[in-house]
Amino acid sequence: MSFNERLDEVCYAQNSHVCVGLDLDIRKIPAYLLETERPLYTFAQNIIDATSEYVAAYKLNTAFYEALGIDGWKLMADIVKLIPRNIICIADAKRADIGNTSKMYARAFFREFTFDAITLNPYLGIDGIAPFIEDENKGAIILCLTSNRSAQDFQYTEDNGLFLYEKVAKKVEEWNTLNNCCLVVGATHPQELRKVRELAPDLPFLIPGIGAQGGDLELSVKHTFNLAHHSSIFNSSRGILYGSDSDDYHVVAGQRSRELRDEINKYKI
Amino acid sequence: MSFNERLDEVCYAQNSHVCVGLDLDIRKIPAYLLETERPLYTFAQNIIDATSEYVAAYKLNTAFYEALGIDGWKLMADIVKLIPRNIICIADAKRADIGNTSKMYARAFFREFTFDAITLNPYLGIDGIAPFIEDENKGAIILCLTSNRSAQDFQYTEDNGLFLYEKVAKKVEEWNTLNNCCLVVGATHPQELRKVRELAPDLPFLIPGIGAQGGDLELSVKHTFNLAHHSSIFNSSRGILYGSDSDDYHVVAGQRSRELRDEINKYKI
Repeated sequence: MSFNERLDEVCYAQNSHVCVGLDLDIRKIPAYLLETERPLYTFAQNIIDATSEYVAAYKLNTAFYEALGIDGWKLMADIVKLIPRNIICIADAKRADIGNTSKMYARAFFREFTFDAITLNPYLGIDGIAPFIEDENKGAIILCLTSNRSAQDFQYTEDNGLFLYEKVAKKVEEWNTLNNCCLVVGATHPQELRKVRELAPDLPFLIPGIGAQGGDLELSVKHTFNLAHHSSIFNSSRGILYGSDSDDYHVVAGQRSRELRDEINKYKI
Repeated sequence: MSFNERLDEVCYAQNSHVCVGLDLDIRKIPAYLLETERPLYTFAQNIIDATSEYVAAYKLNTAFYEALGIDGWKLMADIVKLIPRNIICIADAKRADIGNTSKMYARAFFREFTFDAITLNPYLGIDGIAPFIEDENKGAIILCLTSNRSAQDFQYTEDNGLFLYEKVAKKVEEWNTLNNCCLVVGATHPQELRKVRELAPDLPFLIPGIGAQGGDLELSVKHTFNLAHHSSIFNSSRGILYGSDSDDYHVVAGQRSRELRDEINKYKI
């Protein structure tokens, strides 16, 4: 089964388009956890237990694990194992290199860590992406229009009436022969998101930028599902993880992921 | 001292513009090493011993270490410690994310691993670069024109007579207020390299693509040093590491790095 088919099935079975970003930060978890043996692992375990009913995917941003050195790399491996098999597990790694090197990254994330999908940077073109899309079961989620302010520095470079991010969307449609490519489109640009949807009706989106980054959820949901009824997922990290400072943090995370699920499902119709 | 000043000093003191890429691959090292306890570590140690007299920098491509899982991350930490303090140590990581996340990567590579510099992808704009250039001692080496064939997919997107890679070069010149930004420009495009040199006379280049990738060393050296006499470095990985299958592999690596040093110095005049 291709990655995009599986994503469809998971979203349908879970009745959810929520992705929870497990961006673990030792300075933000409840203080009492610092006295336990593995605070971040315990935190993640309880968050996953409390939210997995309401989500379609978890996303681990590798930066938060690499910042902890070797222990962080081990923590990432352990947390991937906690994620239930019926939920999609994404490495938010934003990798890409020349082909020979991208092959090594594909091995790292798909074989060593058994992630289902990885986020990739398109700057190096198809050489840097190809090793990640050889296996139809594994997904490549390619940066198109990012949620940050300086997305405009280069992503709006205009060529024959087409912005760079639109060119990326069109190219990724071409690369999607095994039905395992997706796009990252930030909720902070809901109008542009609609244009990307028109250019790439076949691709699922991973949509960051709601919550702490202030993106427009309602418009993003409407534009995303406008032309394509298959799956796309909306990520929230800080908004779900750090809603409470005390020992009910996972209860709050569960509530918030359920609320986000319901809100997306409401706008989707 | 700024990173670019230090790079100048190291190139001058070493009388070399060679960067050796430590892309360790267990399938390519001499077979007899597989019987030792830590084959890749031993291999790297002997390569570094044999080449450090002739080089200005070592570059570790993180993909080759991540492909080995947690052991690879530990190996990378151990190899960084082997690199003499008078030589530049670069993480070829091609990272960048939104600001909040790039900050975590900067912590990972500059604090946890004590690299001197890191390669970065410009697609997300200044937000993704800023956390890496706050400390003048640490260098940010930003992808401009990459050495691979599909560099043309997006890097030649033309906006008002300027290709995307040229736009990147101009932007990075602006960002270089602390004199710690450099550019990656592939030796496989020597004519374009000259144009980048014109647009960015103040930036050192890291030049991959000679050796296995078939770039033109002579033209690349001439165009690089044409307008700017300060330091730039030329990377060779496979060409230096895997010149011999037997127990003289490090001797061959030493010879090849010395020859590359001499060839660059000859063309530079």
